[in-house]
Amino acid sequence: MAQMKPRTLSGFMELLPARQVQFDRMVQLLRETYALYGFTPLDTPLIEASEVLLAKGGGETEKQIYRFSKGDADLSLRFDLTVPLAKYVALHQNDLTFPFRRFQIGKVYRGERAQRGRFREFYQADIDVIGDGALDISNEAEIPAIIYRAFSALGLRRFKIRVNNRKLLNGLFALLGLEDRAAEVLRTVDKLEKIGPDKVRAILTDDFAVPGETAGRLLDLLASPDPMAALDAFRGQNALLDQGLEELGTVVRHMAAFGVPEDHFMVDLTIARGLDYYTGTVYETVMLDHPEIGSICSGGRYDNLAEYYTDKKLPGVGISIGLTRLFFVLEDQGYLNDSLITAPADVLILPMTGDLGPAIQLATALRDAGIRAQLHCEQKKFKQKLSYAGKLGIPYAAFLGEDEIAQGKVSIKDLCSGQQQSCTPDEAAALLRAGLAGRAAGTPIREPEVQR
Amino acid sequence: MAQMKPRTLSGFMELLPARQVQFDRMVQLLRETYALYGFTPLDTPLIEASEVLLAKGGGETEKQIYRFSKGDADLSLRFDLTVPLAKYVALHQNDLTFPFRRFQIGKVYRGERAQRGRFREFYQADIDVIGDGALDISNEAEIPAIIYRAFSALGLRRFKIRVNNRKLLNGLFALLGLEDRAAEVLRTVDKLEKIGPDKVRAILTDDFAVPGETAGRLLDLLASPDPMAALDAFRGQNALLDQGLEELGTVVRHMAAFGVPEDHFMVDLTIARGLDYYTGTVYETVMLDHPEIGSICSGGRYDNLAEYYTDKKLPGVGISIGLTRLFFVLEDQGYLNDSLITAPADVLILPMTGDLGPAIQLATALRDAGIRAQLHCEQKKFKQKLSYAGKLGIPYAAFLGEDEIAQGKVSIKDLCSGQQQSCTPDEAAALLRAGLAGRAAGTPIREPEVQR
Repeated sequence: MAQMKPRTLSGFMELLPARQVQFDRMVQLLRETYALYGFTPLDTPLIEASEVLLAKGGGETEKQIYRFSKGDADLSLRFDLTVPLAKYVALHQNDLTFPFRRFQIGKVYRGERAQRGRFREFYQADIDVIGDGALDISNEAEIPAIIYRAFSALGLRRFKIRVNNRKLLNGLFALLGLEDRAAEVLRTVDKLEKIGPDKVRAILTDDFAVPGETAGRLLDLLASPDPMAALDAFRGQNALLDQGLEELGTVVRHMAAFGVPEDHFMVDLTIARGLDYYTGTVYETVMLDHPEIGSICSGGRYDNLAEYYTDKKLPGVGISIGLTRLFFVLEDQGYLNDSLITAPADVLILPMTGDLGPAIQLATALRDAGIRAQLHCEQKKFKQKLSYAGKLGIPYAAFLGEDEIAQGKVSIKDLCSGQQQSCTPDEAAALLRAGLAGRAAGTPIREPEVQR
Repeated sequence: MAQMKPRTLSGFMELLPARQVQFDRMVQLLRETYALYGFTPLDTPLIEASEVLLAKGGGETEKQIYRFSKGDADLSLRFDLTVPLAKYVALHQNDLTFPFRRFQIGKVYRGERAQRGRFREFYQADIDVIGDGALDISNEAEIPAIIYRAFSALGLRRFKIRVNNRKLLNGLFALLGLEDRAAEVLRTVDKLEKIGPDKVRAILTDDFAVPGETAGRLLDLLASPDPMAALDAFRGQNALLDQGLEELGTVVRHMAAFGVPEDHFMVDLTIARGLDYYTGTVYETVMLDHPEIGSICSGGRYDNLAEYYTDKKLPGVGISIGLTRLFFVLEDQGYLNDSLITAPADVLILPMTGDLGPAIQLATALRDAGIRAQLHCEQKKFKQKLSYAGKLGIPYAAFLGEDEIAQGKVSIKDLCSGQQQSCTPDEAAALLRAGLAGRAAGTPIREPEVQR
């Protein structure tokens, strides 16, 4: 038969089974964490009408979109989960109850240039709170708590959530007479960590004609170990700045009550996120040992989610985790916890007699007890069957020979310790449950021990 | 601002939040059930190279495929989960351990003519067991157990799993001299339930020149209340028939040990499934009260999963549930259990003081205890906040006024019974947990009480 060489497209992540289990475990933990904060799960089509998806109009993103025709229809694959959310909320606004809190974990598509660690199909894990006309600042204060609990649940410890406020930035730039150069200044200031204050100052003064004294004030403020205190010097001179200060103060004040430890959180006046979308608090999250990766969870407050679809004012706040890229990085850096069970089954049942009846009954009983049991009835040698369990990492084997069957018992072997014991099916279920509970303790991420 | 009317494409299911929770609960139960049988989760790209996806070549399906170009690449959206599995197994064969047991629940795409209850984007929930060169019949016997446990977990009771064997059918047709008309005879016999034996006989004899006596023997056999016994009359005359009888006998014999009740299972010699793919046991599952819906879970044994990609012989057995269509039917027929909680939160926390600190601390404590807690701090009247909880179906509210805060307590109100009590945060967590456990008891499907 004429054959086609099988391949998976470049830029599309396709995992082997053990890795897939690890990925799914992360997704499940994110679902559970998001749910703790009152977010409802949402699922929207991957395909939308192009005119709907691109209502806002394109820029850089538009070139990357997978767009095609089917019959008369002009269709596109979604490139994020925000535009489909805007469409969903505008379309179903009369059936939704506001504030509307939803999470969505799903695939999105961008035809980026293929390179290592860049994906054309990738999962985003988003949450958003959408208000009807207004949305209280407490929602913005809650977001870092969700980020903290989410990454903690995954097992990440060395990360920091950085927050800023766009009103504060915009007010500050107005006060400093930099309104007309706000975007350029932001982009320059954003490089502070990478190129240092001297080079930033030079770019500001030479390229963007920022007066030397103004650049100095700005850099002093950004370098301040206590930016909130330093900003107090600017209070009362610009209404927008004052409002931003008030909002950021509220966010900071509630961190402890929200359970975010001080060392996992900081105000960072250099972060800005998208220039034309966010209007209040903005968030970034960095891995302390891998700043080069950039932010692993970002977002912010916006004033109009769905202005391209409806006159209804829908302010909101949301964050997004680029899950596929994060998983790639975690694997690449050795952060995945391989001690958790990734096997498809908890126990492999090996019938040793011609009549499979007793082995099948045992499998049924164990499954009734919630234990993942696989029968191995292939025509293979005993040793090959044990090797099968070993390759898959199945933690237990159950043997059913003539003797066991005659006594109504089964031999359970711990394939890790080698210990074996004979017991009744009920005892076997209890034994396995206890053993499995121990091996399930742990998080999907385990940070490597490093010298710091 | 110029606005675009938001819409969702026809043929694409997009659920409101409460329905989405019900859908997700079904997916979760299927995942858990499949996992009990030792299947590992798999996720493959939605986009594949067209030449890979269409290696087998098209027929009817090819016209329905979403196919498009991006740059130089000729791409297609997957139309089922079987072809991507074949590609996956062929591509990764050296990294997989056989038998390879995987489940996959994911979206597939077919540009069918839009009509009520037909979807262009829909979920399939598949399992397959793939052997390396050989695969024991016990795998075929296990499939009905998985179907039975899966639908039982969802809450469906009035369904029946029908099994047949293609070797048996092919042997029987050979024996009756109908080999050259096997496809036509199968298609005709498949209509037995719909048009009755007389019309089937007429079509067989008139349209396909089946001798009257042969048609009679065939119809007698199909009408037999005990087809296995009736088939015994044919034993020993055709090797393929004998092998089919042996296999089907093994499947039937193990049903009890696998925990499938007799009334949920039957041999049905009229089912055949795809004509050119299945080679052994085949399965269909029907809802007893809705035969018009057709099979809600089907599949069978095949000999070569990936012959278009590899010379390796990969026999397997698998089944598929068309989950989106099933969900549509269940909703349409009033089968969805609306008594389970579909709210995004278990408790809505209403701060009644200016300082939000105590309310936030309570929310954090409840979340630490695994309770889904939502803060409602919007500038709304108390009554509006309670109405918010009511609309979403949030079962409990927590009030924190001056008095409660002074005493270190919180008032918990059961919004269903109206009962309210004052307690400490720890007591509140315990109270909520107990109340929620009661409301979580139940399955996503609840069959309507009907006169039968």
